Amino acid sequence: MAKEGADMTEETEYMIDKNVSKEAENVESSGDAKEMRAVVLAGFGGLNKLRVTKKAMPEPQDGEVKIRVKACGLNFLDLMVRQGTVDNPPKPPLVPGFECSGIVESVGENTTGFEIGDRVMAFVNYNAWAEVVCTPVDFVYKMPEEMTFAEAAAFSLNFVAAYMMLFEVANLREGMSVLVHSAGGGVGQAVAQLCSTVPNVTVFGIASCFKHAAIRDSVTHLFDRNVDYIQEVKKISPEGVDIVLDCLCGENTAKGLTLLRPLGTYILYGASNMVTGETKSFFSFAKSWWQVEKVNPIKLYEENKVIAGFSLLNLLFKHGKCSLVKSVMDKLLCLYDQKKIKPVVDSLWALEEVKEAMQRIHDRGNIGKLILDVEKSPTPLLTICMPSYDINKHKIPFMN
Amino acid sequence: MAKEGADMTEETEYMIDKNVSKEAENVESSGDAKEMRAVVLAGFGGLNKLRVTKKAMPEPQDGEVKIRVKACGLNFLDLMVRQGTVDNPPKPPLVPGFECSGIVESVGENTTGFEIGDRVMAFVNYNAWAEVVCTPVDFVYKMPEEMTFAEAAAFSLNFVAAYMMLFEVANLREGMSVLVHSAGGGVGQAVAQLCSTVPNVTVFGIASCFKHAAIRDSVTHLFDRNVDYIQEVKKISPEGVDIVLDCLCGENTAKGLTLLRPLGTYILYGASNMVTGETKSFFSFAKSWWQVEKVNPIKLYEENKVIAGFSLLNLLFKHGKCSLVKSVMDKLLCLYDQKKIKPVVDSLWALEEVKEAMQRIHDRGNIGKLILDVEKSPTPLLTICMPSYDINKHKIPFMN
Repeated sequence: MAKEGADMTEETEYMIDKNVSKEAENVESSGDAKEMRAVVLAGFGGLNKLRVTKKAMPEPQDGEVKIRVKACGLNFLDLMVRQGTVDNPPKPPLVPGFECSGIVESVGENTTGFEIGDRVMAFVNYNAWAEVVCTPVDFVYKMPEEMTFAEAAAFSLNFVAAYMMLFEVANLREGMSVLVHSAGGGVGQAVAQLCSTVPNVTVFGIASCFKHAAIRDSVTHLFDRNVDYIQEVKKISPEGVDIVLDCLCGENTAKGLTLLRPLGTYILYGASNMVTGETKSFFSFAKSWWQVEKVNPIKLYEENKVIAGFSLLNLLFKHGKCSLVKSVMDKLLCLYDQKKIKPVVDSLWALEEVKEAMQRIHDRGNIGKLILDVEKSPTPLLTICMPSYDINKHKIPFMN
Repeated sequence: MAKEGADMTEETEYMIDKNVSKEAENVESSGDAKEMRAVVLAGFGGLNKLRVTKKAMPEPQDGEVKIRVKACGLNFLDLMVRQGTVDNPPKPPLVPGFECSGIVESVGENTTGFEIGDRVMAFVNYNAWAEVVCTPVDFVYKMPEEMTFAEAAAFSLNFVAAYMMLFEVANLREGMSVLVHSAGGGVGQAVAQLCSTVPNVTVFGIASCFKHAAIRDSVTHLFDRNVDYIQEVKKISPEGVDIVLDCLCGENTAKGLTLLRPLGTYILYGASNMVTGETKSFFSFAKSWWQVEKVNPIKLYEENKVIAGFSLLNLLFKHGKCSLVKSVMDKLLCLYDQKKIKPVVDSLWALEEVKEAMQRIHDRGNIGKLILDVEKSPTPLLTICMPSYDINKHKIPFMN
């Protein structure tokens, strides 16, 4: 077994991974599994802190559901967890991951509403990147029949966050305009789709140039992330926009507030600008913190503006708003049934490929959601060792 | 005529006022009035800067309506105008006042929708406290038949502000809770009435003790303004409240944010704490500015909170949102017709009594709105000279 937190070469790790996989197979085949495979973060830091290893099989407590995981969602926040830049993370070693889809394997005592064999998607407070996970019944939702496991793992966090920001925090209505950063990402694509369910909404998307061809049809106006987007938006809409959704933070907060029309709402829902390299950069952290504008409420009064922060995970796991989230999920599943929304999956990765997947999200290479497919076999070692590793290799066709 | 900005004794002023009144009568009786009476602020400062004097009769420009004023609303903001603590006030001498009701006397060119004789209420960008005022047609609304002029002057600003804060900015819905400062004031009473149109809304009101008997039935819980309201609210609702409406500013901003539940909204809509004495106090101004918490958006993100500023006058006169305000007014007039809301008038005052009216609002003596009744004769001089002048003398019965 890998010594937790130890610094090893890629090669050593892969050897261990292979051993783990063999052991896991043996365990599974015995039919009485006491262990399962999981992605473990040995300590905060770079990609080398991640490995796939065996963990004790979890069992559901009172009010919990035990899920045989099929697919897990990978979010930018997972990079921040890995680097240790999130607020109050658990002490490593830990299993990352906040969302998954799978099949109910058993339920704890006093757990109603689910039966063994149900296809479900779920939020988990860490521990999602594993073959099996247990989570309170309040965070579990039944999947529509026609939804695949990959779609389900791409659905929960992105669509719930997008919906709540647009309709709970900002009150999106007919004729309004929305600016969204990282328009090609999972939340960005969910925002674009949800905006299209409201008549006459203008969406200004910001994304890297190489994504423009793929996502052009999903938004009204598309800008390169390196241009002066304030000027570009004001050319089209001199008055600014009604809603700004910002996952970058830093200097974009002041820019977003500047772009707001009267009664407009700026929502900060991430701080990806704090991540620049593979490991935590105190410089990026400090720069982002320093650049973010502290807001004087008297200025908001004079300008009739609204500033909000939104963290779905805190809402679920710290603030106890799971019944509100459940009602939002019900509305979203209606929209899915009516074929008005559909999660965009960027690519599928084996648990053993989590580092490459993380690198892809770090490089903003994705269009839509990156998924860890628990049943997928890792790509042969050879391709990973190649210096010009092609991040588009795993891409599946863009779904619109 | 009084020399503008000159410092005079009460006695001198009243003599001048009488002369003005006589002149005005003569002018009116001639049937071809070139002048009208108005409250003029000679310079920023104390009550002695206010006097009633003659001004040239205004005539409506393109797109304007000329209104023979019957009643004007008096707001706390008018005190701040008088002291010169508002942002970018016009240069005095000026006629204060932002709202009135009356009868359409004529309309400018290209002015449609109103006819001579229409009973109307209107917003005005200053100049409301006069016998006649002209204002763009976008700021004029027809009064319901059964509404009195006093009610109409008490309706526009308070109810539109309360409605927009609760439903446009904060999205009030069934089962939520609202904390409102100055619950006995014009906006406070409008907030309480509008909250009662939504099922199961809890209203925490804060008001001076002597108002409690009069307004107890309008809110769910009532606290004295001198108690530690954070503790009092948390005793009843440990989770806090969904909406905080703050017209005080200063230290109440941090307190309001503390009291918010996740996804809750704090709205600053005034800064009455900046006013402590009769004239502008740089100490109060600086203290309030210093105490108001500058908000870090990253903290809002972690706590899932929303902070907003709301200024109806800026929205109307700077931000060009008059068509939105018109649609809000339509909804409010529906609620009035259904007898779900009714403006609360505290007291009626002659133009010549504007100083006493202002003193009453400064002392937070009012329950509901103070109205300048343009056709009312001033109370005899004697009573004003009495040292123990009774501010309740003018009060009309509390309307609920």
